[in-house]
Amino acid sequence: MSKFKAALIGGGSIADKNHIPALKHLSEQVEIVAVCSRDAAKARALADQHSIPFAYSDAGEMYRECHPNLVVICTPNNLHYPFAMQALEQGCHVFCEKPPAIRASEAREMAELAAKKGLVLAYNLQLRQTSEWELLMKCKASGQLGEIYHIKANFLRRRGIPGWGYFTNKEMQGGGALMDLGVHVLDLALCALDYAVPTGILANTYDFIGKTGGKGLMGSWDPQKFEVEDAAMAYLSFATNASIMLSASFALNTQTDIDRNLEVFGSRGGAKLFPLSLYTEVAGELADVNFPYLEAVDIQLKNTSAFVDACLGKPSNVCTAEQGAVLQEVVERIYLSAIR
Amino acid sequence: MSKFKAALIGGGSIADKNHIPALKHLSEQVEIVAVCSRDAAKARALADQHSIPFAYSDAGEMYRECHPNLVVICTPNNLHYPFAMQALEQGCHVFCEKPPAIRASEAREMAELAAKKGLVLAYNLQLRQTSEWELLMKCKASGQLGEIYHIKANFLRRRGIPGWGYFTNKEMQGGGALMDLGVHVLDLALCALDYAVPTGILANTYDFIGKTGGKGLMGSWDPQKFEVEDAAMAYLSFATNASIMLSASFALNTQTDIDRNLEVFGSRGGAKLFPLSLYTEVAGELADVNFPYLEAVDIQLKNTSAFVDACLGKPSNVCTAEQGAVLQEVVERIYLSAIR
Amino acid sequence: MSKFKAALIGGGSIADKNHIPALKHLSEQVEIVAVCSRDAAKARALADQHSIPFAYSDAGEMYRECHPNLVVICTPNNLHYPFAMQALEQGCHVFCEKPPAIRASEAREMAELAAKKGLVLAYNLQLRQTSEWELLMKCKASGQLGEIYHIKANFLRRRGIPGWGYFTNKEMQGGGALMDLGVHVLDLALCALDYAVPTGILANTYDFIGKTGGKGLMGSWDPQKFEVEDAAMAYLSFATNASIMLSASFALNTQTDIDRNLEVFGSRGGAKLFPLSLYTEVAGELADVNFPYLEAVDIQLKNTSAFVDACLGKPSNVCTAEQGAVLQEVVERIYLSAIR
Amino acid sequence: MSKFKAALIGGGSIADKNHIPALKHLSEQVEIVAVCSRDAAKARALADQHSIPFAYSDAGEMYRECHPNLVVICTPNNLHYPFAMQALEQGCHVFCEKPPAIRASEAREMAELAAKKGLVLAYNLQLRQTSEWELLMKCKASGQLGEIYHIKANFLRRRGIPGWGYFTNKEMQGGGALMDLGVHVLDLALCALDYAVPTGILANTYDFIGKTGGKGLMGSWDPQKFEVEDAAMAYLSFATNASIMLSASFALNTQTDIDRNLEVFGSRGGAKLFPLSLYTEVAGELADVNFPYLEAVDIQLKNTSAFVDACLGKPSNVCTAEQGAVLQEVVERIYLSAIR
Amino acid sequence: MSKFKAALIGGGSIADKNHIPALKHLSEQVEIVAVCSRDAAKARALADQHSIPFAYSDAGEMYRECHPNLVVICTPNNLHYPFAMQALEQGCHVFCEKPPAIRASEAREMAELAAKKGLVLAYNLQLRQTSEWELLMKCKASGQLGEIYHIKANFLRRRGIPGWGYFTNKEMQGGGALMDLGVHVLDLALCALDYAVPTGILANTYDFIGKTGGKGLMGSWDPQKFEVEDAAMAYLSFATNASIMLSASFALNTQTDIDRNLEVFGSRGGAKLFPLSLYTEVAGELADVNFPYLEAVDIQLKNTSAFVDACLGKPSNVCTAEQGAVLQEVVERIYLSAIR
Amino acid sequence: MSKFKAALIGGGSIADKNHIPALKHLSEQVEIVAVCSRDAAKARALADQHSIPFAYSDAGEMYRECHPNLVVICTPNNLHYPFAMQALEQGCHVFCEKPPAIRASEAREMAELAAKKGLVLAYNLQLRQTSEWELLMKCKASGQLGEIYHIKANFLRRRGIPGWGYFTNKEMQGGGALMDLGVHVLDLALCALDYAVPTGILANTYDFIGKTGGKGLMGSWDPQKFEVEDAAMAYLSFATNASIMLSASFALNTQTDIDRNLEVFGSRGGAKLFPLSLYTEVAGELADVNFPYLEAVDIQLKNTSAFVDACLGKPSNVCTAEQGAVLQEVVERIYLSAIR
Repeated sequence: MSKFKAALIGGGSIADKNHIPALKHLSEQVEIVAVCSRDAAKARALADQHSIPFAYSDAGEMYRECHPNLVVICTPNNLHYPFAMQALEQGCHVFCEKPPAIRASEAREMAELAAKKGLVLAYNLQLRQTSEWELLMKCKASGQLGEIYHIKANFLRRRGIPGWGYFTNKEMQGGGALMDLGVHVLDLALCALDYAVPTGILANTYDFIGKTGGKGLMGSWDPQKFEVEDAAMAYLSFATNASIMLSASFALNTQTDIDRNLEVFGSRGGAKLFPLSLYTEVAGELADVNFPYLEAVDIQLKNTSAFVDACLGKPSNVCTAEQGAVLQEVVERIYLSAIR
Repeated sequence: MSKFKAALIGGGSIADKNHIPALKHLSEQVEIVAVCSRDAAKARALADQHSIPFAYSDAGEMYRECHPNLVVICTPNNLHYPFAMQALEQGCHVFCEKPPAIRASEAREMAELAAKKGLVLAYNLQLRQTSEWELLMKCKASGQLGEIYHIKANFLRRRGIPGWGYFTNKEMQGGGALMDLGVHVLDLALCALDYAVPTGILANTYDFIGKTGGKGLMGSWDPQKFEVEDAAMAYLSFATNASIMLSASFALNTQTDIDRNLEVFGSRGGAKLFPLSLYTEVAGELADVNFPYLEAVDIQLKNTSAFVDACLGKPSNVCTAEQGAVLQEVVERIYLSAIR
Repeated sequence: MSKFKAALIGGGSIADKNHIPALKHLSEQVEIVAVCSRDAAKARALADQHSIPFAYSDAGEMYRECHPNLVVICTPNNLHYPFAMQALEQGCHVFCEKPPAIRASEAREMAELAAKKGLVLAYNLQLRQTSEWELLMKCKASGQLGEIYHIKANFLRRRGIPGWGYFTNKEMQGGGALMDLGVHVLDLALCALDYAVPTGILANTYDFIGKTGGKGLMGSWDPQKFEVEDAAMAYLSFATNASIMLSASFALNTQTDIDRNLEVFGSRGGAKLFPLSLYTEVAGELADVNFPYLEAVDIQLKNTSAFVDACLGKPSNVCTAEQGAVLQEVVERIYLSAIR
Repeated sequence: MSKFKAALIGGGSIADKNHIPALKHLSEQVEIVAVCSRDAAKARALADQHSIPFAYSDAGEMYRECHPNLVVICTPNNLHYPFAMQALEQGCHVFCEKPPAIRASEAREMAELAAKKGLVLAYNLQLRQTSEWELLMKCKASGQLGEIYHIKANFLRRRGIPGWGYFTNKEMQGGGALMDLGVHVLDLALCALDYAVPTGILANTYDFIGKTGGKGLMGSWDPQKFEVEDAAMAYLSFATNASIMLSASFALNTQTDIDRNLEVFGSRGGAKLFPLSLYTEVAGELADVNFPYLEAVDIQLKNTSAFVDACLGKPSNVCTAEQGAVLQEVVERIYLSAIR
Repeated sequence: MSKFKAALIGGGSIADKNHIPALKHLSEQVEIVAVCSRDAAKARALADQHSIPFAYSDAGEMYRECHPNLVVICTPNNLHYPFAMQALEQGCHVFCEKPPAIRASEAREMAELAAKKGLVLAYNLQLRQTSEWELLMKCKASGQLGEIYHIKANFLRRRGIPGWGYFTNKEMQGGGALMDLGVHVLDLALCALDYAVPTGILANTYDFIGKTGGKGLMGSWDPQKFEVEDAAMAYLSFATNASIMLSASFALNTQTDIDRNLEVFGSRGGAKLFPLSLYTEVAGELADVNFPYLEAVDIQLKNTSAFVDACLGKPSNVCTAEQGAVLQEVVERIYLSAIR
Repeated sequence: MSKFKAALIGGGSIADKNHIPALKHLSEQVEIVAVCSRDAAKARALADQHSIPFAYSDAGEMYRECHPNLVVICTPNNLHYPFAMQALEQGCHVFCEKPPAIRASEAREMAELAAKKGLVLAYNLQLRQTSEWELLMKCKASGQLGEIYHIKANFLRRRGIPGWGYFTNKEMQGGGALMDLGVHVLDLALCALDYAVPTGILANTYDFIGKTGGKGLMGSWDPQKFEVEDAAMAYLSFATNASIMLSASFALNTQTDIDRNLEVFGSRGGAKLFPLSLYTEVAGELADVNFPYLEAVDIQLKNTSAFVDACLGKPSNVCTAEQGAVLQEVVERIYLSAIR
């Protein structure tokens, strides 16, 4: 079988540190042929550094000359939509960074085009690949949790407004903590509910700390240019009577610098992660189950591999185009609810 | 000044263990004259045990013969309303167990009658009296938290469905975990927001474990007779843009047997309790403030004393009739939201 | 149904603190009619203290006058045999302190007489009644441990040679750490193997510290009068290929003052106790299972109750006469092996 | 003084990672002249990597051409005997990996030939070189432990069946957990008893987990090809009345992934390691002695150095040919006992 | 031998809770005949409560009527001197609370009169009786510490200004933290140096917190009436080149509420207490020695018993009149140094 | 602005590891032109290793040829004075290693010459640059500590006599633990008191362990050649009534291998470091304030940078010539006090 010819669009650190190394590990299935960035020099440097044959600042040129059939998009959020649409039109499978897009309608359109073209469009929500989450999904599948009815999903930073990139730019990113961090744990929570679409959403967003300034633990930010939410709180209710409490923050007066955790409550058992513990009954007594020897895995590699599996038509747990469209819809409805 | 003449309505353990001892500690201001219970023998035994002069099974008779001017109501929830109305009509100040009533309209009526009569009606939500909460309210008052915009309030039991009393009886109690446990932390959360009335509420209630049965840590319960919610999850949104996430459970597959905690997030500082820690900045650095030597206090005594202070026209932090009406309204709207 | 008429033989603290309180808790089934001790004054005092009608210094007289049908024996070890034989001859059910006897032949004879008379003879090995052990036996029964093939059973004291009673007197007690402590965990280990009889035994006993003297944590002892083993180490091998490592000590240069624990290794899971943890696989990963909310129970009350159940012909997990005979045989073979 | 001319037989990772680096550190005394492996390419690669002059696939050729006078054997266990005999016949000192051989008679023969030839034959049991063990032996020598009478020696892995090499091949390795892991702690335990020969041995071996399969923490293994014991339990009794409890496992349902520890009980003091703590009396009180600043040492380097010291006629604590013969005899008797 | 006839002077809680219970435990040697307090009613009540035959408000009367031969003085500090002198004149052995007196000259005079009269005068510095200190003195005696050359002695409270009694009254108590707390650890430090007299003293005292007021952990105090030091810091240098750093506080902005500890540095070993740890070398390695099973003892009973032993001419480690005179001299010199 | 031309005098590891890397980080302001060491080869090697143009063994020659205007002195202590005087005479700013000199008069002379010449002379006491100390000084400046009145300053090693260099040579180093370690924490303590000059000093020095020998944790030392103090204890009293307790050791029988800490007691708050905690009152309750996210910083780089700032006339917290003169005076007075 011939290898996929992969191109990357976006020349930032996520390409450099995550996607290129992962693709290179999969060299039996994928060959990186080009990298494309608005900044030609950046594209060039990245290509040189990783021994990638071609570098472009124009995607059209890239498609014409290199004919890739697999494209990884790691641009600012507002460019996910145009580049994904173009790639699909060019007949390429697309692996797109999260969040899927800026607007729900964009993600929906992207999913429709992929379906129409019979191509794989998938999103890089790689927490699905942690050993803890995979194990939890196994427990769910085997019925050990019973019916899952409530989830608390948190991705909270105390003072983690990124001091670099475009993270506080509303136009380019579409939002703040929810777009950047919240989608990760929201994706997991939705997975636990088989990606049902919520019937009710109530939410609020905040920007007190972002607009005031102060100590930063991930570099310094300019409160004058802080245009997004530093915290988003949301409640999702489902037709099945399930519910999700979602909290995401770049900045919040809380204890730990980074707190990424989920609690999953089912009728037969509950779970907390990370790390993973189960709370259930064993032999008629309340039991806590811990997994002291779970492996740390390279979740980027596993997620890229899952995407490639999908392209090959194999079973895969990568976030699908359809799921991405639902995810983006939920994000948009959260922002809408918060406007009141 | 003459002492208040107090009567208790309800002859259960809350009268025996909480209210009577507290009132006796306040013997310079209050004299217990009678105890009244549907069960005449119970009333008699309680009166004898605590050397209370009179015991009744009929409240009307009690009012006629003893002329109390202060009444403590500790009956099942569905009797709060009729007994409180009667007591107010009789010209008595009323100290009523939580929740205020079964329906929001009842609590509203009670507040209106108290106002009309110029009497004190207050509720026994005694977590307000903990050293931790009082200290937090001091910090709020002095501006150390800035504007409070989000609160997570939890009162969760793993397997704490009470194996005694009427706790699982819908008609007598009006509900389960929310009515019995949730109101305590909801009251605190509303205090932190100056008892604003939420503009939006979204909620769900559950009864998986209650209806299935299993190991109990607070006695055994009969799943056949389990009529209330074992868990309630709710989100409250306010006109000020503040929000509350509320979780209450009798039974939930979670780690600890009893987890009663709040997180309060403000623009200048945050707090977690119990115990109390503050998360803020000191001299430009992120600082955690702990209070290793806070006193344990008798919160029932302090709350009863706060009620008596209110009756004497002194400043008091006891839960007022008006606050109780708001609290009951919120509870009712949570249940309504959960019906969908 | 009429109550059992119980008599106690032996007037020491084990009667006073363990057996009499337990029997009194079971007053619906048992009535204590007499206590008998070589020391008439002691018998009298004990009877008075617990409002027991009669006190004797002669057992024959007691049988003639009181006609008990249930006898509890809590004398020094060398009197278990004669008093148990006498009680059985008198037609009484017998609840005897551990160890069953001094010699294996005695315990065997006792079991045979009980069988012949159709009476219950049982031994007070009450660790069987701990929540941890009962839960472990449930797990065993449900197959969660698979086939149990190795057990490490330890009852070790660092400097716990009792400074009172007859514990160091060879003639009265028959031995030291093994007779007094080791039998408890040996009984559990044998239960885990369905009370199989070992085919091979290799063992050693020691008395270095007992004969040298030094610091005592349970009173002082006289090294001149130390006649028993301060430590016993034994290995038991079974026809099923199972094995037990048994360690018991009154005195040993080890870390903790008292270390009573078992490790049970099965083909599908292992366990450590006390407290109880399971080591197994869940969903294909190595899992540790803990039981944070096991109840502390009154194991003496439960064991006495189990004995009474046996007398009533109900199912019971009390140590039977037959098991006691096997236990005594193993103890004797351990001492024999250690003589080499 | 001229340097030893060293050759290595066996080209696996133990040569690569342990022996060659150690020998190179001792370059003032030893010069590595050749490496020999059945697999010529492997020998060549290893020689090149470490700048060793010659590589052979035939040992005879190596002896003829290189004339080494010091040979390190790190082949599969079943080749220890033939290669050691050959090396001794060639007049070389021999440093052999553990276990000494497959059969007791082989190790005995090897020791006899070494003695006859006046050559050093020693075994790489390098736990003797840990700071903890050396310190314990000093304490033993100075009498701080008194007479040592009981030892518990454990080398337990929870799921550590090696997923590489020949570890589960009965013919090549002679056994499993006992041969590979148990010999390390058995060697230490025997050292503590001055390498006395046990008079009684009772033992069992198991293969439940190895033959069933499951999660592996050291790679995956094939249960179909699992021919050795996954656990060995043994009791050794000595003429001096001392005793040893030995436990070794590749796989056991126990808590920790790797638990390598010894407890040594003496008449005046006891010890637990690793790390080392002493349990004794100081000034008439029970005292625990810890050594918080013991150095971590390169035990392979120290053991190789001890072997070279022995070759130079200096005092050395390396495991001697005679000790190796006793060790192998004990191992064989354990297996024999377990056959029953 | 006839019993001592004991009288107590001072009717406060130290008589009630410490001295009377201790004397009663020693009823074979001592009989309490009278209690004397300026406040006749207090004396009467105390006598009644403890079944002491006589109560006085006038000491002279007490001596005339009761003829005690052993007097315990537990008055405010400024009365130690006059009552001790009177008691000695009356031919009584005297057991006096700490500190010995207000002025050094008083303690010296008291010691001289006791010597002249051949009577025992001793002080109640009961920390000497802790198991930890006794064990440390044994280690010192056996040479395990070598030459002791430096001691850090601390008795620090964070906010422990007593809210009762006369503790902040300069005239009655003579000083604050040094007089009340510091003398305890100073006494121990001087014991470690064989009660040598320091050649140089440099010291400072403070009253910032005491005079400012604030949160109290031992009741509230009136900053207006705070006349003593809330903290004393001192350095003592000895002719032997030994040195002591002494710190005592009623109030200090430090971590723990009460921190009473000593560090003792000797040429062969050091110690920290409470609890006691030794830092030394064992077998050539740095070793920490802990004593996990030291008994908690009733130090008041042991100290009273030591005083009685002294009265009986037996060996005793109670603080002697001579040591008390040195202690008081050091205290006075610390205050003098602090005046600068 | 032109860059400073820097030269280093002293070719040891402190030049290699600390000063040269720091200066190179400041390459926009400083250019290293030469390195000078008595040992010409050492100078050469150091220059080559760091690409420094010139190497000298004669400082005079260096000044003549290279004309540096900034000199870093990192020689043995006894050469600080002559080289600093020479450098100042040559018109260079001087950054000198601690301690300032051997004698107080030297440091005073150095300060006077620097003042006369209008040059910067500063000392490398880099603990001032820790995040913890800088934050504490901010808290002091903002009044959060009130008046600071007592400081405990410790720099203690258990067995840290350096086994290399000249640390135990009295003539070259001027002293031991005080000169090498004590000055660091003494400098901080004096900073906390605005570098007041103490009015009273009492001190002792010791050399028991240094002269006896034993286990070393920082290499081995020769007790025969141990000429300095292994421990210094001192008390400093100030005209403001403030006081300092100072303890420094190379070797002391204490718990931890290295214990470098300060406690600072003020009228409104106290502090302990490292790490930094504050002990104060918040909202009327005792509060502990911790700073969990302080950054680890390169204190050498920050201190060198502070020195360069001073040379540029910018504000700087580097230890000044005047402070160094006071520090040296205090050190000398401590040694003088200890001679008694």
